[in-house]
Amino acid sequence: MTQIHPLSSQVKVLAFDVFGTVVDWHGSIQREIQSMVPGVDGDAFALAWRAGYQPAMQRVRSGELGWTRIDDLHRMILDTILPEFGLQNLNESQRQHLNLAWHRLRPWEDSAPGLRRLRQRFTTCSLSNGNLGLLTELAKNGSLTWDCLLSAEVFRAYKPDPATYLGVANVFDVKPDEVMLVAAHHDDLAAARRCGLHSAYIERPLEFGSARPKDVSPQAGNDIHAQHLINLADQLGCPD
Amino acid sequence: MTQIHPLSSQVKVLAFDVFGTVVDWHGSIQREIQSMVPGVDGDAFALAWRAGYQPAMQRVRSGELGWTRIDDLHRMILDTILPEFGLQNLNESQRQHLNLAWHRLRPWEDSAPGLRRLRQRFTTCSLSNGNLGLLTELAKNGSLTWDCLLSAEVFRAYKPDPATYLGVANVFDVKPDEVMLVAAHHDDLAAARRCGLHSAYIERPLEFGSARPKDVSPQAGNDIHAQHLINLADQLGCPD
Repeated sequence: MTQIHPLSSQVKVLAFDVFGTVVDWHGSIQREIQSMVPGVDGDAFALAWRAGYQPAMQRVRSGELGWTRIDDLHRMILDTILPEFGLQNLNESQRQHLNLAWHRLRPWEDSAPGLRRLRQRFTTCSLSNGNLGLLTELAKNGSLTWDCLLSAEVFRAYKPDPATYLGVANVFDVKPDEVMLVAAHHDDLAAARRCGLHSAYIERPLEFGSARPKDVSPQAGNDIHAQHLINLADQLGCPD
Repeated sequence: MTQIHPLSSQVKVLAFDVFGTVVDWHGSIQREIQSMVPGVDGDAFALAWRAGYQPAMQRVRSGELGWTRIDDLHRMILDTILPEFGLQNLNESQRQHLNLAWHRLRPWEDSAPGLRRLRQRFTTCSLSNGNLGLLTELAKNGSLTWDCLLSAEVFRAYKPDPATYLGVANVFDVKPDEVMLVAAHHDDLAAARRCGLHSAYIERPLEFGSARPKDVSPQAGNDIHAQHLINLADQLGCPD
């Protein structure tokens, strides 16, 4: 039997990173592009699309671009990488359809049942750089039961801007240390801790595809280390 | 058998007013104050608290107050009206508890089952001047299944500011006429229509208590007139 973590009685709100933590962006994008264009290297395509993400957000942070939704950043990156994969001939409607692949990302197997359990004991919300429309469709398509969707779009700032982490505490009128960020990325968790939040690391060894398993060994600093969301529910004492 | 309204194939998003339309603020506030202070006139108390709402928002709109959450406006109004009911001796913790009565408002009987049906066919969201934390608790306590919570807090503007109605279309990347506002208040619906949204009126004859039934006769301009959310689901062709 899993021992219940003492933070389970202090924390009131669980805020979840989404891309990679709750949904499998790599496998989903790979499947979508391969079903549209058989023969393309879907693994490389997914990685290339995702690799454009941080630089695109940086253009917004630096002021080069005004506030831009991730949907629109995804489209800018897509238009850039298509020629690299010999796909410059995709027409407008194919590009639009492909861009919305990010609204159809599939949850990891444990995500929907894990969230259902965690929600029995905690207020649960997303805290994603993805826009609200995207998060809404992910939830609807993936049967993800959130109490509330929070996004960079609400705070007009991308993670790791403190406005996002502190924004969660503010929305729910709790102290920062009553919020726990749940994520598969140490940098996101570290930024949340610098704002006074607690942190739970989720192993997602296949986030970048089965060809490049991630090092998911425990790191100092995280309050909780969990294999997946069901294990997190166990550690936080959420009933089945 | 109810005839299916032709707009059911055009509209993609249903945005709901909440206070009065989805939850019964009058009956809930009346119950809360009477259970805290037996003998108080709960009916008059509920009406007085609610009557302070529009003037309080007006102080924000006019710039006299900076952006303020409804939770905080509710508290300012509460502190003002308590002496009028001889309740100036309520202590801080009683006032805090009472203020959060707005997080515990009970849904009308048809709200939860109606929303469940409507969500099968449409994207559903709140569009309330209530803040996100309040809406989250209403949904959790009342088993209201939204696809997304939208609030004045997201748009930093209260209804009837066009930024709120047009904000819904923007969030879901649809045209204004693909959004329908669902509300029990003609002024809210008219403001939505001026922004190009469609409108569905919901009869809530007891919104102000059983002592003063509301005139809920159909008015020109509304695209749909429904008795309650289950009837709306019927009219919009949502399966049981």
